[in-house]
Amino acid sequence: MDHASSTYTSKEVLKTMLPYFTEEYGNAESLHTKGKEALIAIDKARETIAEILNCRQSEIIFTGSGTESNNLAILGIARAQKTGHLITTEIEHPSVLNCFKQLEKEGFECTYLPVNKEGFVNPDDLKAAIRPNTILISIIYANNEIGTIQPISELAAISGDIPFHTDACQAANSLPLNLNVDSITINGSKIYGPKGVGALFLKRGTKIKAIMQGGSQEHSLRPGTHNTPAIIGLAKALELAQEGVEKENARLTLLQEKLISELLKIPGSQLNGPQPGPTRLPNNINISFPKIDREQLILNLDSIGIYSSASSACKSGDSQISHVMTAIKQNNSPLRLTTGKITTEKDIDYCIEEIPRIVEKLKTH
Amino acid sequence: MDHASSTYTSKEVLKTMLPYFTEEYGNAESLHTKGKEALIAIDKARETIAEILNCRQSEIIFTGSGTESNNLAILGIARAQKTGHLITTEIEHPSVLNCFKQLEKEGFECTYLPVNKEGFVNPDDLKAAIRPNTILISIIYANNEIGTIQPISELAAISGDIPFHTDACQAANSLPLNLNVDSITINGSKIYGPKGVGALFLKRGTKIKAIMQGGSQEHSLRPGTHNTPAIIGLAKALELAQEGVEKENARLTLLQEKLISELLKIPGSQLNGPQPGPTRLPNNINISFPKIDREQLILNLDSIGIYSSASSACKSGDSQISHVMTAIKQNNSPLRLTTGKITTEKDIDYCIEEIPRIVEKLKTH
Repeated sequence: MDHASSTYTSKEVLKTMLPYFTEEYGNAESLHTKGKEALIAIDKARETIAEILNCRQSEIIFTGSGTESNNLAILGIARAQKTGHLITTEIEHPSVLNCFKQLEKEGFECTYLPVNKEGFVNPDDLKAAIRPNTILISIIYANNEIGTIQPISELAAISGDIPFHTDACQAANSLPLNLNVDSITINGSKIYGPKGVGALFLKRGTKIKAIMQGGSQEHSLRPGTHNTPAIIGLAKALELAQEGVEKENARLTLLQEKLISELLKIPGSQLNGPQPGPTRLPNNINISFPKIDREQLILNLDSIGIYSSASSACKSGDSQISHVMTAIKQNNSPLRLTTGKITTEKDIDYCIEEIPRIVEKLKTH
Repeated sequence: MDHASSTYTSKEVLKTMLPYFTEEYGNAESLHTKGKEALIAIDKARETIAEILNCRQSEIIFTGSGTESNNLAILGIARAQKTGHLITTEIEHPSVLNCFKQLEKEGFECTYLPVNKEGFVNPDDLKAAIRPNTILISIIYANNEIGTIQPISELAAISGDIPFHTDACQAANSLPLNLNVDSITINGSKIYGPKGVGALFLKRGTKIKAIMQGGSQEHSLRPGTHNTPAIIGLAKALELAQEGVEKENARLTLLQEKLISELLKIPGSQLNGPQPGPTRLPNNINISFPKIDREQLILNLDSIGIYSSASSACKSGDSQISHVMTAIKQNNSPLRLTTGKITTEKDIDYCIEEIPRIVEKLKTH
């Protein structure tokens, strides 16, 4: 019940990767056959991803993670302009939010849009925030903690000529990626692909500066030997995620609705994020319980085989209320349960049976 | 004959990685069992590497590549000081050299030490280059094009209190890594480990600034979900590389001596880099032939199954003489042949038979 923190690499994906570890292991920059084999495989992966995103192959840049893709897009687009104003939201992933904090230190002006109680950005707020010197807008597609899906097309349309970036790491399993934006981050570790690989879609003509220096790989925007197996795996994982997505979304929504309605019977419990439906990730359940130590809740659930998280894995070491919970004005301890391909109705029934019992046990009266 | 560009992931290494793709796939930051499993495995990998480098576990930072480790060390140490003077050499890997070029744009002063005809830095040149405001020295341990092994301990001793970084990516297969320096880069793709993973040893107390922003992984120095399988693979690969290193070095040196002495019989040929022995990587052969189109040479060798490179893979798209060749004042086309674990005497004999024939064929009279 913690698939949003990390998914396994599916057997089908791993199978496509294996030959590139041991047989077709050439450096894609080499002139010889062994190098060309790798280059051809990488280009095919690029083509697969470009088709899903409905973009040119040359607009896909392979990176080492979702974090790196977000850093490259945000730091890179901002630094290419040297100065200016940027807009994001209060509920971004730390790899976006902390890039904005960094850019503030570098002299850029930043606006953090608020969200409503369900986590939605108000398009009017975006309109009002745009200034003549706005150089970048970055809004998360689907929130990793509370599952809120932003109206990205509507927001991007407001941005006009200003580059619009979206972090789609949590969205790629269940939402269309054919978006009218300038920049999109995806990664492997959330979509049953490998860890340690990401991609950045960057619209042709977008001015950007690399964040790392080295070889001339990826149009000199991302140096380093291509990680062929991981790139192959990312493309395969994305392909599989988008195949049969409607059926899987429908299945997960049924499980989600059942679990949410049962957990909301616990006295004092509250749903964080929107109601299940088209504006909430189908695999995300986030509910707050009053007077509960959230770390104890996670550890108690762990002891009976339910793996969960309080906010996101990236913040788990931190015992404070997350920035997302603060933004939606939720002070009670949240429990995030995120389902995945292997989650069955039996798993949901087990959660329904056990979670209320544990919550009751932990209540500090 | 191009192992310096990229090695395969050994079956033994891949075997240790596999469970972390499909079974123990948790996010190391998660509080639950699945997360702890990953964290324990990563800590074990960190321990393995720390033992080999004779350092503390907390001094090992996992990254996404050798390029990233070099960027983190050089950009990070420099930017933490905001201003100052840095020293490197003319024969660094592009991921070091281009960081220095970037730092010059940011207002830092940089000195590029020359090398002699065999590629060695003169320790007196380093002594003379140090200024009161020198904040970092970065010298490649073993050169990737011509195999020259620098006297790193001697050079590091000269640096005194100034942080001393070394790029050991090409050295890790055959040289000791227990060095008295402040910072070391290693990576997986050169040592029969996985691509897309690197490590940086950073001595406790060294001031550094992260180059990417995000979660608090790796002491907040390298954000992003840990790439558990690749980290496990890197540690295993390094362990295997260092086991029986003397025996393998001796074997490769014999092959190297034989191939070099035979190829030097070709009229006009010249060895680039030092003579085989303790100051040259045992797997590196680099010989220049006059009046040869180097791309044609590589493609002709490829057609008979000999995979080679002109300088390094990172520069192969570039038809100019490499910066390393320029530094050692070599104008003729170089051919780099780099052996590996699977290279046999039969392979060397085949090269001895075929290369002179191809060189003769391509000579432009």
